[in-house]
Amino acid sequence: MEEGLLSKRSKYVYNILLEEEGLASNLAEAGKKVVKLNRGDPAVYFKTPKYMIDAYVKALRSNQTYYSRAEGAKTLINAVIKRYKEFYGLALSEDSIITTEGVSEALYFINSSLINTGDMAVIFRPYYNQYMTTLELHGGRPIFADYDERNMWAVDLDALRKSLKSARSNGQIKRVKYMLVTNPNNPTGTVLSRRILSGLADIANEYGIFLISDEIYDEIIFNGAKFTSISEVAKGMPYAILNGASKNFDATGFRIGFIIIPEHDRLSSELKSKMSDYARMRLSVNTPAQYAVAEGISNSKEHAKAIKEMVSEIEKRINSSVRILRENEYLDVVRPNGAFYIFPHIDIKSLKFRNDKGFVEGLLKEKLLQTARGSGFGSPAHFRIVSLATESILTDSMKKINEFCIKHAR
Amino acid sequence: MEEGLLSKRSKYVYNILLEEEGLASNLAEAGKKVVKLNRGDPAVYFKTPKYMIDAYVKALRSNQTYYSRAEGAKTLINAVIKRYKEFYGLALSEDSIITTEGVSEALYFINSSLINTGDMAVIFRPYYNQYMTTLELHGGRPIFADYDERNMWAVDLDALRKSLKSARSNGQIKRVKYMLVTNPNNPTGTVLSRRILSGLADIANEYGIFLISDEIYDEIIFNGAKFTSISEVAKGMPYAILNGASKNFDATGFRIGFIIIPEHDRLSSELKSKMSDYARMRLSVNTPAQYAVAEGISNSKEHAKAIKEMVSEIEKRINSSVRILRENEYLDVVRPNGAFYIFPHIDIKSLKFRNDKGFVEGLLKEKLLQTARGSGFGSPAHFRIVSLATESILTDSMKKINEFCIKHAR
Repeated sequence: MEEGLLSKRSKYVYNILLEEEGLASNLAEAGKKVVKLNRGDPAVYFKTPKYMIDAYVKALRSNQTYYSRAEGAKTLINAVIKRYKEFYGLALSEDSIITTEGVSEALYFINSSLINTGDMAVIFRPYYNQYMTTLELHGGRPIFADYDERNMWAVDLDALRKSLKSARSNGQIKRVKYMLVTNPNNPTGTVLSRRILSGLADIANEYGIFLISDEIYDEIIFNGAKFTSISEVAKGMPYAILNGASKNFDATGFRIGFIIIPEHDRLSSELKSKMSDYARMRLSVNTPAQYAVAEGISNSKEHAKAIKEMVSEIEKRINSSVRILRENEYLDVVRPNGAFYIFPHIDIKSLKFRNDKGFVEGLLKEKLLQTARGSGFGSPAHFRIVSLATESILTDSMKKINEFCIKHAR
Repeated sequence: MEEGLLSKRSKYVYNILLEEEGLASNLAEAGKKVVKLNRGDPAVYFKTPKYMIDAYVKALRSNQTYYSRAEGAKTLINAVIKRYKEFYGLALSEDSIITTEGVSEALYFINSSLINTGDMAVIFRPYYNQYMTTLELHGGRPIFADYDERNMWAVDLDALRKSLKSARSNGQIKRVKYMLVTNPNNPTGTVLSRRILSGLADIANEYGIFLISDEIYDEIIFNGAKFTSISEVAKGMPYAILNGASKNFDATGFRIGFIIIPEHDRLSSELKSKMSDYARMRLSVNTPAQYAVAEGISNSKEHAKAIKEMVSEIEKRINSSVRILRENEYLDVVRPNGAFYIFPHIDIKSLKFRNDKGFVEGLLKEKLLQTARGSGFGSPAHFRIVSLATESILTDSMKKINEFCIKHAR
């Protein structure tokens, strides 16, 4: 092993969200109380609905502890089919859905099955950090497209078209394997409009790029926004949806996600069949959790109640946090209308920090608030706040952020 | 996407154990009752112990439904530390253990972090099929060493030394990243002797190869065999153990595995730290299941009772199956003393089948017995029987195998 133990690819494996864990635990061990605003984990603040826990317990008590069908228990698959029919009028066949260990495993399957070394993917910036990690881990490179902060984080379709046109003229286009959009977005909390999504579908279609929409927050919509699933605008072309139980069903620790490939064209069929191979390779995901999520989805009455309560709380928490942050002249905040993140722009030049990393570290050390630096999402001079804690914790934290900025003004 | 949608590597993703699922479901749909002797899933035949289910339920009822620590909940990590101390006198530190979604995810982490395209690994044949799949998926190639069927499936240490010597002289040795041994073995059910394991440790040490021992069946030992953990013979050198809850704790559907890297040398430390990065990339494994497994391990009194009962049943089932198969002049069977597999050699020349695939397909179609072909484990002219069903099902099945062979004799 003269050349070193670790593979070249493994250098990309890194989670920016947990980057400050070492410092945070040192502080905790020294008796300081760190407020964690860095993990998008609703189940810490909202109890996973009891009717889902009951279904989980029932599955355990009735010995559902063996390997499930590799692509997911039929009960769960049928629940997902029903959901997409009711929500989006989408007719899914059983083989269109692959159950995964969260969206994390979905990203692994997608990248491992699509990306050869040197292949590319269209990644919108700011991106959820794991998109880049998993793409690069598999030898891929991004073609970045930017969400436009000055335009409420909408996608600039013309700019995207331009960069794909140039990829076509320099011959790179045939190596562009997929385009991955997140709606609602992490880290910005933006819900994309139907017009933008239609535009993305047209562009993907025009350039022959497989379109993927990560819709893991598709029920966490507020401030009057209207959510559009990619399935409503991408009919008849190859595309995939990523979703799961973690956010809408407030069950991060269950690790249940889905890859949904609705269409039956050649590309869709090839990918579906390969996703099934990947699922079979690792035999099964947690079996009893699948029954809990099946009930979570199927019992639409209980779910409607639970999601309504949670989203209305999140809306309040987001809006009151944004209100306080807007008093801060060193930050600019686009108000989110989905998910549970706030992604302020930092006026770094007016502060005594070299960059967002310095800002985030300082905030942790001085104010005991753990957030995540924007550069980890591809957008320097920003930071991400998870706005899930109770309103009093959040109010207190936002005020501390404001004090912190004033204290470190140039 | 002119070059095709799927990546080159994805062609390796294939699970031989589920190869006949299509045929089996067609038979089932036609009203035939297929006996599944193809999946090593004890929880189908033995109820997961109630004290573990109770702990699982308790975790759910106390809202342990959020992301856990990425490397595993501390409660579970401490249980694993205690187990290895008691079982093998091994002193593990907290950071030596990474919790994974079964051994499947452990294999992904190991191969992704160690294997560059063209790197190699020593794989003992017959192998558990997923070792090869995951190695090749990451661009690796095997150097095969054979278990010797005529010598009770022991490893021929001299032959292994010889092939590594030749790898050294042709310069390949520096690309050999790891050596992966399975003890007890899947598919042969063989428990390796201490002498063999010491020999493997010496060889790995001499050639500077990272040694990995998959010990997922380390408590499923019978017929008077004595199990030796690699940790008892590999002290002071870099090595890893793979283990988990699926088999010893009869909880396949929980998907809880471990990578254990006990030592503190440079290679061990590098790999430990990288395994932590991989764990953090996907945030968490199923949280409540971790508490169930922690109790499974910690409650040693309940566990001792459960494992004793299960192993004594498995011993009976294996031995009575082997007894019947030995009446069959077309099969040769080495009696297993660990795990729950039987891996008979088929005298293909005396039967009207071209190969083991034909044999296994015929057995499924005619006798409704689903097994797995030996060529999928790197050993043609064999087939694998999972010997976990009730004694009456197994007795009946083994008799059918004998009838089947007689019927198809040349």
